Amino acid sequence: MRLSRYFLPLLKETPAEAQIVSHRLMLRAGLIRQEAAGIYAWLPLGIRVLNKIKEIVHEEMNRAGAIEILMPTLQSADLWRESGRYEAYGKEMLRIKDRHDRELLYGPTNEEMVTEIFRGYVRSYKSLPLNLYHTQWKFRDEVRPRFGVMRGREFLMKDAYSFDIDKEAARKSYNRMYVAYLRTFARMGLKSIPMRAETGPIGGDLSHEFIVLADTGESQVFCHSDLLDMPIPGEDTDFDGDLEPIIKSRTDLYAATEDVHDQDRFEAEVPEGKRLSARGIEVGQVFYFGTKYSAPMKAVVAGPDGKEVPVEMGSYGIGVSRLVGAIIEASHDEAGIIWPEPVAPFDVALINLKSGDAATDAACEDIYARLTKAGVEVLYDDTDERPGAKFASMELIGIPHQLIVGPRGLKAGVVEVKNRATGAKEELSMDAAVNRFAPA
Amino acid sequence: MRLSRYFLPLLKETPAEAQIVSHRLMLRAGLIRQEAAGIYAWLPLGIRVLNKIKEIVHEEMNRAGAIEILMPTLQSADLWRESGRYEAYGKEMLRIKDRHDRELLYGPTNEEMVTEIFRGYVRSYKSLPLNLYHTQWKFRDEVRPRFGVMRGREFLMKDAYSFDIDKEAARKSYNRMYVAYLRTFARMGLKSIPMRAETGPIGGDLSHEFIVLADTGESQVFCHSDLLDMPIPGEDTDFDGDLEPIIKSRTDLYAATEDVHDQDRFEAEVPEGKRLSARGIEVGQVFYFGTKYSAPMKAVVAGPDGKEVPVEMGSYGIGVSRLVGAIIEASHDEAGIIWPEPVAPFDVALINLKSGDAATDAACEDIYARLTKAGVEVLYDDTDERPGAKFASMELIGIPHQLIVGPRGLKAGVVEVKNRATGAKEELSMDAAVNRFAPA
Repeated sequence: MRLSRYFLPLLKETPAEAQIVSHRLMLRAGLIRQEAAGIYAWLPLGIRVLNKIKEIVHEEMNRAGAIEILMPTLQSADLWRESGRYEAYGKEMLRIKDRHDRELLYGPTNEEMVTEIFRGYVRSYKSLPLNLYHTQWKFRDEVRPRFGVMRGREFLMKDAYSFDIDKEAARKSYNRMYVAYLRTFARMGLKSIPMRAETGPIGGDLSHEFIVLADTGESQVFCHSDLLDMPIPGEDTDFDGDLEPIIKSRTDLYAATEDVHDQDRFEAEVPEGKRLSARGIEVGQVFYFGTKYSAPMKAVVAGPDGKEVPVEMGSYGIGVSRLVGAIIEASHDEAGIIWPEPVAPFDVALINLKSGDAATDAACEDIYARLTKAGVEVLYDDTDERPGAKFASMELIGIPHQLIVGPRGLKAGVVEVKNRATGAKEELSMDAAVNRFAPA
Repeated sequence: MRLSRYFLPLLKETPAEAQIVSHRLMLRAGLIRQEAAGIYAWLPLGIRVLNKIKEIVHEEMNRAGAIEILMPTLQSADLWRESGRYEAYGKEMLRIKDRHDRELLYGPTNEEMVTEIFRGYVRSYKSLPLNLYHTQWKFRDEVRPRFGVMRGREFLMKDAYSFDIDKEAARKSYNRMYVAYLRTFARMGLKSIPMRAETGPIGGDLSHEFIVLADTGESQVFCHSDLLDMPIPGEDTDFDGDLEPIIKSRTDLYAATEDVHDQDRFEAEVPEGKRLSARGIEVGQVFYFGTKYSAPMKAVVAGPDGKEVPVEMGSYGIGVSRLVGAIIEASHDEAGIIWPEPVAPFDVALINLKSGDAATDAACEDIYARLTKAGVEVLYDDTDERPGAKFASMELIGIPHQLIVGPRGLKAGVVEVKNRATGAKEELSMDAAVNRFAPA
């Protein structure tokens, strides 16, 4: 993408309303624009990151055997009356009347709807296990939306729902999502720690929150520090196999959010030098809630003995839009964002230090063409801004690698490659630089 | 994907509420489920098609130089008061109040919001031309939603918006989208005909609807029949070049929807043997509306002479969810859907005629593994249904190619390959069959 043809509206000043660094940087780097309280438009750089995060989430869902669907944003109020949550949900639910005065709502979550879909078709345990997921916009009418996409009102969530014949099978489904989540967040460059958590309005008796540590995190968390360096299950993980050892290696170690924290247990179970107390950001949560929805909504299947039983369910959420903020909270410096490569909006920033200089332009065009042809995503700054301004912009938007081309270097036969995260610079020949990102 | 682990809820009976063939087939083939009037959930097979259509639309938008963004579903009523459309839009607009009694609405289209985004950042003609697009769920509160996704209330639309310094540049932007649309629909296996159309509530003085012919189309259309066989601009089309000849070759020939049809002109301009009068489905529409939104909303840029002028705009919509229905209307038979390859939910249906038979299972597993490894999307029917039921299901869901494996064929060293569209069958060796879909 040529910057001269792109839409990258960077802000010089830090917007006064932004209280946390991810919100400030998302506004300054032209990722989002607020359209109403807690409601954002995603600008070109922002949607690229959001799409990459969604893609990773979906790949790991598919790997774990979950199946994609897509439920609508609006739901019928009657559906929520069946579960008893319509009245219970309170003012966070956005209630709507259509032109015929029928009651709708903007879905804050989808347990009811997916249960309705399930009961509409599935009759036998032979169709189980089943796990259906979707990524769709949700709305929660927060009293005071703030922190940008970290606590917005309209937000993008991936939510998966598992259906099993009994508790044992449901536990296996839970484990599959637990392991998928470990992989998902690790692939985005995040260290996530699963922690026992309250189940809240979803209900149920087993839940883990996946927490990313960051100073600006919304909640206090307590855990064994070894949890920071556990191995991540590999691509070859057998999701049909026994995942319990992976889970147990983590649940054996103390980890809890402040809601369920037990200081005495913490001190008894964790050696003093390993006690980690920190701020954390929730990026996902998994729930097992049994028949909480299937029983009242009569989502039953015939078991092997022919008897009908309500299906055992769990739900599994990932805050897809919130992750954009969480990643920035976990990865930035004074100059701006530092994107982990898998979620970066572009792979390489190509900086032309002297647009208009024939040799420099030609070298940049050549590099741009070769990298683009190889499938490398390049943002090419071909504008006539000063080099200083170009550097500052690229530092701010945080593309992992900068490839800097100027007349002086070209005379010496070199271009400069800079790593955004480490700041390390190297001089390479043009061919070597191209080869670095697009190996022949 | 193994069918035994998939969620493919097929209906034996045709639902009584479905009046047109695409709606019937979408319900029967397990593509969608109605959740409220005009509001649908997309089941696994359906979301795969929807994703493929969206992907093609985005590729062609990007090729034509448009830039992806993503605007939220909910919008502030105040924004629409600026353009004067809040009161004018009528009951099709879903109006919402949040917990603080602030007026929101579920966006039926995004001219106002994108104009607000533009004016927030762009100051100079040097940033133009600019074309921003997104694909987002919209809501129009139809009095009587019907025909499934063809006239739903919550629907997925791609809408692009162009910004230019003057009419001449705006016309070029319009032409780019016109050509992109020709390519987009052709890639989905559709013959689309651009027709002059009314501008309706969007406004402006130039508009074309892209119409797909189908007996169940919602409107009568009239055109020169040569328009059915015009060449489609290639992948190498230069969108920076002069597209006028491509446009002119079409606009020279009479084509109009019933709203703007002029029978006298039709008869005067079109030789009798070339007069086509047929039913059509609108799958996209392009508008040039100049300063209709930029003037009242003060989206102005400084021109080369330093004077501020309101920006010239156009908008360009494609009904992404509607296209699923439109493609089925245009491509089906008595037995079910016939997906054009580029939008098919799977490339190949692998049918095991005798699940449980060791040799047949082994052959199927081998084929499945080899095709999947090569990136071919295979739906493998590994269930123990009867062959007749398996055939009927695969005909219904319309996967373009069937690969049929049974004990008798295997003894003779062959498997059968069947083309869903033509019904043509071939016997091939296993290797030749695999090679057909995954050339070595």
